[in-house]
Amino acid sequence: MNAFTPTPRSRLRRKPERAHYDRGAIHAVLDAHFICHVGYVVDGQPYVTPTSYWRDGDRLYWHGSSASRMLRHLRDGAPACVTVTHCDGLVLARSGFHSSINYRSVMAFGTARALEDEASKLAAMKAFVERLTPGRWDELRPVTKQELEATTVIGMDIDEAVAKVRSGGPVDDEDDYGLGVWAGVVPLGVAVGEPEPDRRLKPGVPTPDYLKDWRLG
Amino acid sequence: MNAFTPTPRSRLRRKPERAHYDRGAIHAVLDAHFICHVGYVVDGQPYVTPTSYWRDGDRLYWHGSSASRMLRHLRDGAPACVTVTHCDGLVLARSGFHSSINYRSVMAFGTARALEDEASKLAAMKAFVERLTPGRWDELRPVTKQELEATTVIGMDIDEAVAKVRSGGPVDDEDDYGLGVWAGVVPLGVAVGEPEPDRRLKPGVPTPDYLKDWRLG
Repeated sequence: MNAFTPTPRSRLRRKPERAHYDRGAIHAVLDAHFICHVGYVVDGQPYVTPTSYWRDGDRLYWHGSSASRMLRHLRDGAPACVTVTHCDGLVLARSGFHSSINYRSVMAFGTARALEDEASKLAAMKAFVERLTPGRWDELRPVTKQELEATTVIGMDIDEAVAKVRSGGPVDDEDDYGLGVWAGVVPLGVAVGEPEPDRRLKPGVPTPDYLKDWRLG
Repeated sequence: MNAFTPTPRSRLRRKPERAHYDRGAIHAVLDAHFICHVGYVVDGQPYVTPTSYWRDGDRLYWHGSSASRMLRHLRDGAPACVTVTHCDGLVLARSGFHSSINYRSVMAFGTARALEDEASKLAAMKAFVERLTPGRWDELRPVTKQELEATTVIGMDIDEAVAKVRSGGPVDDEDDYGLGVWAGVVPLGVAVGEPEPDRRLKPGVPTPDYLKDWRLG
């Protein structure tokens, strides 16, 4: 099955042409960054917490301190909405109404729950390190038992998800194309700087290959 | 009063040294981008919707089609959490446990509600255009009555908010500084490209001053 089946929870009613339910489109958006926004509810109050995440198939993972409110709330199983957004540009149309944003986003719905056994937690943490910096896991000193206990890893199977994508230039009312106002796109993206070694870096340690031309996705 | 008073809803328990409740810090984070994530609850289900926003004092605004699910849900007054996150870098420590992200984020809590009268809606829309592209509002053709009706503008007074900020290099266990693994920061930021004129731009329309060296914030 190559697409998620949308229910009213994920089906886009407005501008349905921007919606994608197929796994290829959804995974591509999810794999283009490592910061998501996790939505959850405590006593009717919505919370949106930014955190790092990674993906394995249709499963999303995130982690943090076992003392974190978000993780304590989610660890026993709670509905969550994980949203990932890439802002690709400012779209300046000839009217305010048609001005827009170019973006790629995913809203993924599921039930979050903590991983229970140590082996699963370790495997998930390794996947995160290797996803961002392939080869680094084996360079790091092993995770200690205390560190493992102090860390909660959340997994969420995606029950349903929708990708929303807008790209390209402005689409104006036909009558407005003759107006003498500038129209177009200001492209936006992620800037990656040169790796900055820690001031206490052990002398002689070279910049690892996985940081050369490092980029997201 | 220069700081928000945190209740359990916004008070940071984990790593309280990263928390800021003063308006200066919170406004600075809010003013550094125009994409936020709005969290809201429908029938116990959390939703997190990315959208553009702007700020006036302690009030946040966002807008969209009057047919949007989010806006229809929020228009009559609903608890919301608006989160804004800037990802500033990947912090590679000598252990996975101390590896981190440099970021600036704000979680703002309040009750969202639609603006009712046309004058307030127009003023809010103008503020948004002028915030991103100062001087552009008067270049655009006027908003039509139909466009105004088709647009819902949401305002949310911030009841409480917290900024979370992490910056700087890794902080490792003292014993780990002697390890021969690379440690440091990969800086991340927003890349702004050259404005791309629409292919149907009226000949002779120059790139406006407000797009020269355009940047966020």
